Amino acid sequence: MQILETVDAFRQARRALPSHAILGLVPTMGGLHDGHMSLVKQARRLCDFVAVSVFVNPMQFGPNEDYTKYPRTFKEDMSLLQQQGVDLVFFPSAEEMYSPNHRCYVEPEGFDDLVEGQCRKGHFRGVATVVTKLFNVVQPTHAFFGQKDAAQVVLIKRMVSDLNIPVEIGVVPIVREADGLALSTRNQYLNPVEREAASVLHRGLAYAQNLFQKAKKDGKTAIDAEMLPIEYVSVGSKETMQEVSKVDTVDGAIISVAVKVGKCRLIDNIVL
Amino acid sequence: MQILETVDAFRQARRALPSHAILGLVPTMGGLHDGHMSLVKQARRLCDFVAVSVFVNPMQFGPNEDYTKYPRTFKEDMSLLQQQGVDLVFFPSAEEMYSPNHRCYVEPEGFDDLVEGQCRKGHFRGVATVVTKLFNVVQPTHAFFGQKDAAQVVLIKRMVSDLNIPVEIGVVPIVREADGLALSTRNQYLNPVEREAASVLHRGLAYAQNLFQKAKKDGKTAIDAEMLPIEYVSVGSKETMQEVSKVDTVDGAIISVAVKVGKCRLIDNIVL
Repeated sequence: MQILETVDAFRQARRALPSHAILGLVPTMGGLHDGHMSLVKQARRLCDFVAVSVFVNPMQFGPNEDYTKYPRTFKEDMSLLQQQGVDLVFFPSAEEMYSPNHRCYVEPEGFDDLVEGQCRKGHFRGVATVVTKLFNVVQPTHAFFGQKDAAQVVLIKRMVSDLNIPVEIGVVPIVREADGLALSTRNQYLNPVEREAASVLHRGLAYAQNLFQKAKKDGKTAIDAEMLPIEYVSVGSKETMQEVSKVDTVDGAIISVAVKVGKCRLIDNIVL
Repeated sequence: MQILETVDAFRQARRALPSHAILGLVPTMGGLHDGHMSLVKQARRLCDFVAVSVFVNPMQFGPNEDYTKYPRTFKEDMSLLQQQGVDLVFFPSAEEMYSPNHRCYVEPEGFDDLVEGQCRKGHFRGVATVVTKLFNVVQPTHAFFGQKDAAQVVLIKRMVSDLNIPVEIGVVPIVREADGLALSTRNQYLNPVEREAASVLHRGLAYAQNLFQKAKKDGKTAIDAEMLPIEYVSVGSKETMQEVSKVDTVDGAIISVAVKVGKCRLIDNIVL
């Protein structure tokens, strides 16, 4: 497994691959868990070569978010990736990725109006920009994203289509703990009491999904939030994540939630 | 010479090229003249294969600009390109390039504050977005742009650097008529009287350049504009096109002008 820390070094390693190789990229911010590993395994199954990027992207964090405190577990991450037979790791510094003169951004219009975007202004622009950069450096044929970040999946597919990016996008299901909590690097911020309360996200979603499947009729469903501060409960289009007031039984929808649990902001979703 | 009208058709033709081929792209809006041809010739000299895109990009025209009236001379264009031994032509429709759901743009921050950007709000975003799309469709190793659009050249280089786009950018000098008028598709809008007056752009620039070279000292220089309405005379940095109040004799600068001549808006520049 080669670990490359600069764009030039990565490009050189990329050029050494056979020219028609199928190369899968899994973009991550490190802090790897079984959710990431399911992406890596999917890439390993479908591709000749697997690249993983590990980059805590400052541009996708808001000013009051956890950029400096975000878990950085490089050694453990590398050992997990090696076990999965990953070929290339791209591990750049923030300075390598953003020059002081940086001025060009990929702007996904309307995403800041989505519920997740309203809570994290500028987040999706940071994601779109860094993913474009990673695609241009790594030049994968395929890239894999987790369903947990539902709006991000919609964004990436929209961006690939709008900008004609020559990469196939694979989406991998959410990996959950036994009690239904979606795996997230940020779960480690939770204390034991908060950890127990956090399972409400999935229970609430499952309740809504259940009602939807039973009733097969229009309507939004509220979550019993066990006194946790809800940022949003959203029923959105699968294509655009934009709010829908009716759920079509053929098209379905994505119901997504964001809740503050202690200092930790958790998100989850279920596809209806 | 293959003419491809869809993204899929172009990609198929691209895949048929040898995998390590040097492919040069010349992006154009058609209405081809000797300025474009100097770009094509440069691509032909330096590359194994040459692709030319012909696409009048609605996104880079302002609401009061000449999108519908912009010269479309497809037959003549194809005959010129064939004479130069061009291999691939990408000639998509506006519908092929922009879906009704299009939401992702490449936003070059600060460029709307440049003199040329102030006169054409949103123009540079349209250019950055379409060039990104063309690069992703054509996947050239090299791309060639004319020095006439000086701010565009600075934008493309900035964008390639910021987004890690794996394309080498070549810049080709301005081609001028005998009296110094820079070649432009829009020159055909000029009537004979206007055509004669239009040569003032280059005379004014040459005058300023001359003063600069003689004096080798700080300062801006005004142009005697022969009563034509000047949009701007700008002395800008070569790196950023941002206005400079002093011209460093080592770093130099770009002096650029935009003038209305009849219904035609002409731009020109000289590198100091």
